[in-house]
Amino acid sequence: DLSFDSKEHQHLRYNPLRDSWVLVSAHRMKRPWAGQVEKTPEEHIPRYDPRNPLCPGNTRASGEVNPSYDSTFVFENDFPALQSDAPDPGSDQHPLFQSKAARGVCKVMCFHPWSDVTLPLMKKEEIIKVIDKWAEILEELGATYPWVQIFENKGAMMGCSNPHPHCQVWASSFLPNEPAVSDRCQRAYYQKNGEPLLVQYAKQEAEKKERVVVENSDWLVVVPYWATWPYQTLLLPRRHILRINELTVEERDSLAAIMKQLLTKYDNLFEVSFPYSMGWHGAPTGPHLKEDNSHWQLHAHYYPPLLRSATVKKFMVGYEMLAQEQRDLTPEQAAEKLRNLPEEHYKTREN
Amino acid sequence: DLSFDSKEHQHLRYNPLRDSWVLVSAHRMKRPWAGQVEKTPEEHIPRYDPRNPLCPGNTRASGEVNPSYDSTFVFENDFPALQSDAPDPGSDQHPLFQSKAARGVCKVMCFHPWSDVTLPLMKKEEIIKVIDKWAEILEELGATYPWVQIFENKGAMMGCSNPHPHCQVWASSFLPNEPAVSDRCQRAYYQKNGEPLLVQYAKQEAEKKERVVVENSDWLVVVPYWATWPYQTLLLPRRHILRINELTVEERDSLAAIMKQLLTKYDNLFEVSFPYSMGWHGAPTGPHLKEDNSHWQLHAHYYPPLLRSATVKKFMVGYEMLAQEQRDLTPEQAAEKLRNLPEEHYKTREN
Ligand SMILES: O=P(O)(O)O[C@H]1O[C@H](CO)[C@@H](O)[C@H](O)[C@H]1O
Ligand SMILES: O=P(O)(O)O[C@H]1O[C@H](CO)[C@@H](O)[C@H](O)[C@H]1O
Repeated sequence: DLSFDSKEHQHLRYNPLRDSWVLVSAHRMKRPWAGQVEKTPEEHIPRYDPRNPLCPGNTRASGEVNPSYDSTFVFENDFPALQSDAPDPGSDQHPLFQSKAARGVCKVMCFHPWSDVTLPLMKKEEIIKVIDKWAEILEELGATYPWVQIFENKGAMMGCSNPHPHCQVWASSFLPNEPAVSDRCQRAYYQKNGEPLLVQYAKQEAEKKERVVVENSDWLVVVPYWATWPYQTLLLPRRHILRINELTVEERDSLAAIMKQLLTKYDNLFEVSFPYSMGWHGAPTGPHLKEDNSHWQLHAHYYPPLLRSATVKKFMVGYEMLAQEQRDLTPEQAAEKLRNLPEEHYKTREN
Repeated sequence: DLSFDSKEHQHLRYNPLRDSWVLVSAHRMKRPWAGQVEKTPEEHIPRYDPRNPLCPGNTRASGEVNPSYDSTFVFENDFPALQSDAPDPGSDQHPLFQSKAARGVCKVMCFHPWSDVTLPLMKKEEIIKVIDKWAEILEELGATYPWVQIFENKGAMMGCSNPHPHCQVWASSFLPNEPAVSDRCQRAYYQKNGEPLLVQYAKQEAEKKERVVVENSDWLVVVPYWATWPYQTLLLPRRHILRINELTVEERDSLAAIMKQLLTKYDNLFEVSFPYSMGWHGAPTGPHLKEDNSHWQLHAHYYPPLLRSATVKKFMVGYEMLAQEQRDLTPEQAAEKLRNLPEEHYKTREN
C-alpha cells in the first residue's frame, strides 16, 4: 500500500470560510506548458504622465481636476458600477426571475503621487498613510452601507487599466455573496466552537509554522491550508479585531511592515511586479454595527494568478468553473518558496 | 422619481442554480477601456502538425502512438489531475484542517482528425459523433464514478494549450462543489414547486423570448436571466432528461444542429474563433444511479470571456473575487446581439 504524500497524491481540502473544497493535484506541475504566455508588465512607467487621469494636477473624464496631492488621494469613480440613486427594479415575483435594488458608491484611492512606485517600493510611513485612509473610508461609508469592499487589482493581467498605484472602494446597500457566505461560516463555527474561526486558525498556523510566509508580533501571513490560487495568501491579525478602523497606531505600523515584506517577496518570486487582486474582509457595517459580530475576524485575501513564471498563470477554467477549483502545487510548497525569498526588493538590491 | 431601466440602472439578479446574486451594471459599458488587450487567436493552424500530440498517428508524451483515427478519439490524459489509485490523506481531525481522498480518471477526447476545424466548422454528422461519444463516456465512467465532468476549454485565453479540437472528461470519486450546489438548489426547488427548476425555466423562457438565442423543437439556448459572463449561455432540452446518454437519435441530431448554430453565432460576434469554457451538467452517477434524481435536468453551460471585441475580455477580478460577480451589459442585450447574428459562419461566407 502506498503511503500518502501530499506532493504526489491528489486530495481534497476543505475551505471553512466558503464551505467548499479544493482539489490539490501537485504532481500536475510536472506537465510541460505549451499554452498561453502573458505579456510581462511594462517596466518603464513614467513618474508623471500628463495623460494619466490618476496623476496629481491632471483632469479626469468627469472634467474634474486632481489636486497636487502628495500622499493618498480619494475621488469618486468616474464610471461607477454602483450609484447611490438607482431605482428599484421591482420583481417578476416568479422564483426564477428575482431581482433586487442595488445602490452604492464607488471610490478610487491613489496610494502615492508617483506612477512608478508600488506598495512594496513605498516607505513604511507611506504605507501607513494608505492604511489610515482605508480605516477612514471604512468608517465613513460603513456608517450607512452594510458592506464596504476595499480591493486592489494590481497589474494588467488582473484587469487593472492604470499603472498608477491605487485601489478601489465599492460600498453597497446589500451584503455581497462572498462576505455573506463567509459571515454564515464564521457564525456557525463560533456557535459550535466558542472561538472565532480565524482567531483559532491563526493560533494553529503560528504553531504549525509550515504554511507561514511572514509574521510579526501583531500579524501573520499564511498560504491557507485551503488556498486555491497558486500563491494565494491570507493576512491575519493575532488579536481579535472586527474591522480595519479598530487598528491601533502600533498595529498600523506593524501591518505596513508586514505588507511591505509580503509584497516584496511576491515581486521577488519571479522578479516581476507581481499581479494580484487583494481585498479586506471585516465584520459588516451600517445596520450591522448594532449587532453582535464577535464571530468575525478582520483579514485580507491576496489572490495572485501567476503559477510557473512571470508569464505563465494558472487558468481557472473548464473544470474549475464547472466542477471544482484545482491547484497544481501544495500550499506548503508555495509557503516554503515565499518564506525563503529575500526581503530586499530585487529592484533596489543592485544599488 | 426615476422609472427603472435595466440598461441604465444597476440591480441584482438571483441565480437559482447557485443560490447567489449577480450585480448587473449595464451603464458601465460606456467607460473607455485602456487596459489589457488579448492576442487574437492563431488563424493559420495546419491541418496536420507532426509535433502535435493530438493528431492521428503521432506519438504522445507517454510514448503511446495515436491511431490514424478518422472521427473522434479518446485517450487517458498523460498528465491527469485525478488518478485512480491515490492513497487516503487521512485527516488532522481539526475542523480547520480537513482533507479527503480524491480518486478519478482524466480523459482527452479529440473531436476530429483535423487540427484546423472547430465544432461550428464541422458537419452536423461529425458533431453527432461527438455527442454519441459523450454519451458513451458518461455511461462507461458513470457506472462507478459519482460525477463525470465533460468540459471543453476552447482558445488559449481559456488555458487551452492545444489548438486541435478536443474536450476533456474528468470523472471523480466525489461530487464536486458546483454540481453539489446545483443538486441542492434543484432539489429544494423541486420539493417546493413540484416541477424541475430547469424544465420550468425553459418553458418560461420559451414564452418570454427576450433571452432566447436559438431554439428548435427539442432544444433552447438562452442567455440566462442570471448570466455572469457577458455572452454566457445555457443550453436546455425542452423534455425532462436526466443525463446525456438518455438522448434519442432525433435529439442528438437536433442537439448537433443547435450547437452548430450557437457556436457559429459566437464566432460571428467578433469574427474570431470564440474562446469559452463549456461543460455538461446532468444528474449524478455511480451510487446516485439508484436514487431518485427527478429534480435534475440535463444542461450545458457556455462561459465565454470576451466582452467588447476579439481582444477585450471581461476580468472577473477584485470586486468579483472578493464580493460579488458583476456584469457590464444586460443578459437581454447579449441575447439580442447573438440572436441577430447570421447563421452562416464568417469563414465560409466568402466562398
Ligand atoms: O488540462 P489542460 O488543458 O492542460 O489545462 C487547462 O484545463 C484545466 C482544467 O480546467 C485547468 O486546471 C488548467 O489550469 C488549464 O490550463
Ligand atoms: O474598475 P476597473 O479597474 O476599470 O475594472 C476592473 O475591476 C473591476 C472590479 O473588480 C472589474 O469589474 C473589471 O472587470 C476590471 O476590469
